[in-house]
Amino acid sequence: MIEDSIQAVSWQDDALVLIDQTQLPADVEYLHCRDVDSVIDAIVRLAVRGAPALGAVGGYGVVVAMLQAEREGWDSTELAAQISRVRDARPTAVNLAWGVDRVQPFVGQGVMAVLEKAHAIVAEDQQANRELSRHGGDWILDQVQHRPIRVLTHCNTGSLATTGWGTALGIIRDLFERGVLGEVFVDETRPLLQGSRLTAWELQRDGIDYLVQTDGAAASTILRGLVDVAIIGADRIARNGDTANKIGSVAVALACQAAGIPFVVAAPSSTVDLNTASGADIHIEERNADEVTVIADRLMTPAGARGFNPAFDVTPHQYISAIVTERGVVIPRGEHAADALTGESV
Amino acid sequence: MIEDSIQAVSWQDDALVLIDQTQLPADVEYLHCRDVDSVIDAIVRLAVRGAPALGAVGGYGVVVAMLQAEREGWDSTELAAQISRVRDARPTAVNLAWGVDRVQPFVGQGVMAVLEKAHAIVAEDQQANRELSRHGGDWILDQVQHRPIRVLTHCNTGSLATTGWGTALGIIRDLFERGVLGEVFVDETRPLLQGSRLTAWELQRDGIDYLVQTDGAAASTILRGLVDVAIIGADRIARNGDTANKIGSVAVALACQAAGIPFVVAAPSSTVDLNTASGADIHIEERNADEVTVIADRLMTPAGARGFNPAFDVTPHQYISAIVTERGVVIPRGEHAADALTGESV
Repeated sequence: MIEDSIQAVSWQDDALVLIDQTQLPADVEYLHCRDVDSVIDAIVRLAVRGAPALGAVGGYGVVVAMLQAEREGWDSTELAAQISRVRDARPTAVNLAWGVDRVQPFVGQGVMAVLEKAHAIVAEDQQANRELSRHGGDWILDQVQHRPIRVLTHCNTGSLATTGWGTALGIIRDLFERGVLGEVFVDETRPLLQGSRLTAWELQRDGIDYLVQTDGAAASTILRGLVDVAIIGADRIARNGDTANKIGSVAVALACQAAGIPFVVAAPSSTVDLNTASGADIHIEERNADEVTVIADRLMTPAGARGFNPAFDVTPHQYISAIVTERGVVIPRGEHAADALTGESV
Repeated sequence: MIEDSIQAVSWQDDALVLIDQTQLPADVEYLHCRDVDSVIDAIVRLAVRGAPALGAVGGYGVVVAMLQAEREGWDSTELAAQISRVRDARPTAVNLAWGVDRVQPFVGQGVMAVLEKAHAIVAEDQQANRELSRHGGDWILDQVQHRPIRVLTHCNTGSLATTGWGTALGIIRDLFERGVLGEVFVDETRPLLQGSRLTAWELQRDGIDYLVQTDGAAASTILRGLVDVAIIGADRIARNGDTANKIGSVAVALACQAAGIPFVVAAPSSTVDLNTASGADIHIEERNADEVTVIADRLMTPAGARGFNPAFDVTPHQYISAIVTERGVVIPRGEHAADALTGESV
C-alpha cells in the first residue's frame, strides 16, 4: 500500500508550505511562504509546478495576501492588487488564475472563510485524482492483456504536480496497489527533466521499479514491445479531445499507434476546455531558449546558438486511445468528444 | 561556397591528428597520436566518433602501430597484437575493424604502403560523401515543393563524423550551396548531445541558419509544418532497408510519416549490411546508464536510479522515404531493397 505522504502544497499555521521542487531529487526542502513576494517567487522559479498544484497555490495565495494585509494595514485596493499579482505570476498557467478566482469572492467573509475554500480545492483535487486513477486502472486492466503491465510515462504527474496522489502517475500507483504493475519507463523529459528529477523520486519513494530513459528512447522502447501502455497527463484538453501536454508527448502517442498499444491521457475534468474547439486553437508557449542550450549551468552549444523551446505539444485526438477524468473514460472521437468529460456544454 | 576545412581525422608528419570532439564546442583542440595507447584512448573517450571517421582511424592506427614497432623494436607478434588492440577498441564500431582489415594485408610492404592505403580510405570516403550529397540534394529538390527547404536532422553526420563534408549533413550542405536551404532544426541528441555540441558547431562555421531543440520537440516541429524534410545518417542498413541509427531517429520517422513529409537516410554504401536480413537481426547496443542519469557531472536522478540507455534504434523500412548512398537513391520496399545500394548480393 502506498503511503502518499508527499504534500507538494499544504497550509501550516500561518504559512503556505511548498516542497521546493528545484532542489529535488538531491534535497527535500520546504518553503514557508508568509508574504505575496515569496509566493510569487516560488511560482516563477518553478519551485511549485503542475496544473492542479497551482490551483491550490492560487487559493492559498489569496490567504497569504489577506494575512499580510492585516499585518501591514493594506486597504482593499492594495489587497486586490496583490491578489492580482499572484493570479498573474504565470500567465499561461490557467489553474493558478482558476484557484484565485475560486476563493476571491469570499474575501469579504474573512480569512477563515477563504482558507476553508482553499482547503476545498485541495480536497476536491485529491478526490478527483483517486477517482480518475481507479477509472484509468479499470480501463487498462480491461484493455491490456500482458501481466505484469509495463508502463511508459512522460514528465511528472504525481503528488508533486497535484495536491496529492497524481493523475497519470495516480493510475500507475493504482495499478501498483492492485499488484499488476511491472516496470515503469520514465522519460527524462527535457529540457527541465521533470521525469529524471521528480517522477523518479516519487516512484523510488513508493518502491515502484522504474528506469529513466532519454526522451528519444521512448519510441524505440514502445516499438520493441518493452511496454504495454503509455500514460501521460494534460495541460489542456480541447473539445474534440486534442490534448496539449509537455513537449515530447505526441512522439509517444505516434509510437503507441505504430506499436498498437494504448496511449492514455489522464487529467481532472477541470483540464477540459470546451471553449477550445481543437488543438489548432491551442497556443504553443515558448519558454526561454537557455533551457535547451544550457544544462546544469553549462553551455552545451556554440556561443550564440539559437534554441527552440516549445513548452508543450498537441496530440491530435485520433492518436489518443482514452481520456480519463474523475467522471470516467472517453474514447475521443468526434468534435464534441470531450463534452462527456465535463457534463457541461457550451 | 562552404570551405570544408574541418579535418576530424588526418595524418601529419608522423602522427594521427584528431580533433578532440569531447572539447567541442567550447574548444578546438587537436590530439597528436604517436603510439597505440593514445589512439585507443581517443577512440574509447569518443574524442573521435562517427562510423566513416572510425574507418580512417583504423587505417591510420595501423600506421601508428608500425612506427611505434620500429622505435621500440617490437617483433611481428607484438605488432600484430597491438594492431588487434586498435581493431577492438570499440567492439560495436564495425567501421573501425573494417579500416584496420583494409590496410593490414599491406603491413609486409612497409609503412609507406600502409599509409597510402589509409589515405585511400579517406579519399574514397570524401568522394562518397560528395556524391551521396548530390544524389540526396537532387532527390529532395524533386520531392519537396516548399522554398526555402527547411530541414530537421538528428545527431552529427558532418565533417566530424566522417573524413570530411558529411552524409546527412553533407546533403544539407549541398542544399545550402544550391541556395535553397532554409532553417535547420537540430535535435540536441541526448544523451551525448552530438546535435547541440557538434552539428551546431559545424553549421555555425558554415553560416547556416539553425535552431537547437530537445529531441522531444522533434515530432511537434514536424507535425506543426515547420520543416519540409528530415535527413539522418545510419549506423547500419539491413538488406530490407531497415536502418539502425542514433537513438531518437525512429520517432522522427514516425512523425514524418504522420505529417506526410520525406524521411531520408544518408550513408556510404559500406553501411549496407546484406548479411543482416532486417532490423529484427540488429542487436541494440546498450551504453552505460550514467550517460542518462548524469549530465555535466551532475546526478539528475535520485541516487540509485536505474538508467536505460540504448545507443541506437531501428527504423523499419516502411517509414523511410529514401536511402541515399554514393551509388544513388533507393526507395526501400521489399526484402532485398538494399541490394541496389551496394551492387552486391549474398
